[in-house]
Amino acid sequence: MTEPKFDALCIGNAIVDILARAEDDFIVAEDLHKGTMHLIDAERAESLYAAMGPAIEASGGSAGNTAAGIASFGGQAAFIGKVADDQLGDVYAHDMRAIGVHFGTARLTGGAPTARSMILITPDGERTMNTYLGACQALSPADIDEAVVSDAAVTYLEGYLWDPPEAKEAFRRAAAIAHAAGRKVSITLSDPFCVDRFRDEFLGLMRDGTIDILFANDSELRSLYETASLDMAVAALAGDCPLSAVTIGAEGALVVARDGVKKIPAVPVDTVADLTGAGDLFAAGFLFGFARGMDHADSARLGVIAAAEVIGHVGPRPAVSLADLARQSGFEF
Amino acid sequence: MTEPKFDALCIGNAIVDILARAEDDFIVAEDLHKGTMHLIDAERAESLYAAMGPAIEASGGSAGNTAAGIASFGGQAAFIGKVADDQLGDVYAHDMRAIGVHFGTARLTGGAPTARSMILITPDGERTMNTYLGACQALSPADIDEAVVSDAAVTYLEGYLWDPPEAKEAFRRAAAIAHAAGRKVSITLSDPFCVDRFRDEFLGLMRDGTIDILFANDSELRSLYETASLDMAVAALAGDCPLSAVTIGAEGALVVARDGVKKIPAVPVDTVADLTGAGDLFAAGFLFGFARGMDHADSARLGVIAAAEVIGHVGPRPAVSLADLARQSGFEF
Repeated sequence: MTEPKFDALCIGNAIVDILARAEDDFIVAEDLHKGTMHLIDAERAESLYAAMGPAIEASGGSAGNTAAGIASFGGQAAFIGKVADDQLGDVYAHDMRAIGVHFGTARLTGGAPTARSMILITPDGERTMNTYLGACQALSPADIDEAVVSDAAVTYLEGYLWDPPEAKEAFRRAAAIAHAAGRKVSITLSDPFCVDRFRDEFLGLMRDGTIDILFANDSELRSLYETASLDMAVAALAGDCPLSAVTIGAEGALVVARDGVKKIPAVPVDTVADLTGAGDLFAAGFLFGFARGMDHADSARLGVIAAAEVIGHVGPRPAVSLADLARQSGFEF
Repeated sequence: MTEPKFDALCIGNAIVDILARAEDDFIVAEDLHKGTMHLIDAERAESLYAAMGPAIEASGGSAGNTAAGIASFGGQAAFIGKVADDQLGDVYAHDMRAIGVHFGTARLTGGAPTARSMILITPDGERTMNTYLGACQALSPADIDEAVVSDAAVTYLEGYLWDPPEAKEAFRRAAAIAHAAGRKVSITLSDPFCVDRFRDEFLGLMRDGTIDILFANDSELRSLYETASLDMAVAALAGDCPLSAVTIGAEGALVVARDGVKKIPAVPVDTVADLTGAGDLFAAGFLFGFARGMDHADSARLGVIAAAEVIGHVGPRPAVSLADLARQSGFEF
């Protein structure tokens, strides 16, 4: 097996975020579940946009944010995701390439526009997402570049890929190619309601050996095992997946491996400006550490460093070099 | 004369900002003048975008930022500017209406795309702008809504409007309507190189009584009078315009009236994150105070409060309520 060119290939919905502050009252009035992702159609996207406040735009998407985080650590990352041949697609492609992420997916022409997610940030820093998938609906197995998958230490996939019709087939194809090349396959559960939609399929992927590394936060994990007890969910997880990293908010993260559970405390943060990207950036740190042969605890430490950076400002991607932050915390790479 | 419906009507280039961090080396390598605005064509826009780092997008444009600031103070603002019928035009129109700014200018269809400015923010917080005017080139006298002009206490115009071919005619038409309705006309000099391009015309507007209130920063004012001495420029200004407000960076602002010069100190700022919008937001505070009948010193105090807010974060418009900030500083309105 040759040395992989990429630390990770991230595959996910390519989404431009539209980030706006909102009061809790607005979340209630719009009948939204705070802290979760809502899939919306074009009509709802228009009416919600008309109702919400002024915004800024930033390239996002869960796996895209993770790829950006890996690049910020100085890692080699690739991304597969579908944007349209429009202005927001230009923005998305620019932001990927400008940070050195390999991004070669063919754009959708003559179809739906580039996906956007209207992200409402409440005063507590929590984000509530409203995603119009647009061009992401067209991601298909033909978009999986076999050479890139084979050349990535880890192929990392969003649970959100279960929503667009053909993307789950793209996901399965990528996983098969990765394993055939002797690489690892990883997934994030993405969102508690996403888990609710696809619980049996996600558990099936874990139990049939498709997933080598699982990422989740506590509410996603409790949703997966339909339990209010994080301890019970973690115990079940240990039997279903060889390696998992579970973020537990302000407490940090748990690494769940066959040989036991380790807790890594969070990096303290003065003010949580915007939780958008916290889980995605945790995954970036962990995957970068994993791909570079660090132990699980150090990999998780890189994860909490990255998560702390991204929640300190509005926007889903790092505003400063994560490599510099890691080195300031004593890492050498 | 009836009570005006709008505190101010702002007329300017409607631009989406593309904000990115950059090192000083990059500014030098791209042959840019730090702290100023460069007009670029579509080809240069493409090559610079390809060379620069990852960015965020935010609705901007000098007069648009001022309108947003007035709205944030709780004022009634209107805006006239030209966007295209495209995704960035949607973003711009949304952001105006979401803050309650009246914005009814017809969009350009089948022509150039919505304008964008690539704004490079160096570690000192200074911003260097690279503007592709796009649809702004199509702003014409027909876009001046006579009813709105007549109904605004002040019509505020960008010096940048001298760049698009027909916009200066739109500017002159608006000024004539405003004066015929017994309202005030104001201009910002916008940029030292803009002053260099149109010095005689700007001086002519001041001297023929078109301009009632002038905004400038120190370098624009020194450019106007072609002197290295701010004192000499201020002395000349007092003879050319009945009322002027001159921002002098970290020192604050000068109010230059026929009865003398007053200095208003700046509000101290911990860290200058991004100077984009500083002058625009100063003008917002001053115009809001002026329209509400405050004295010049208090109007300038509102200006420095607004400027301090906008330079504390990345982006050209307020992130919090300026009305709240002003009330915290003892203002009652």
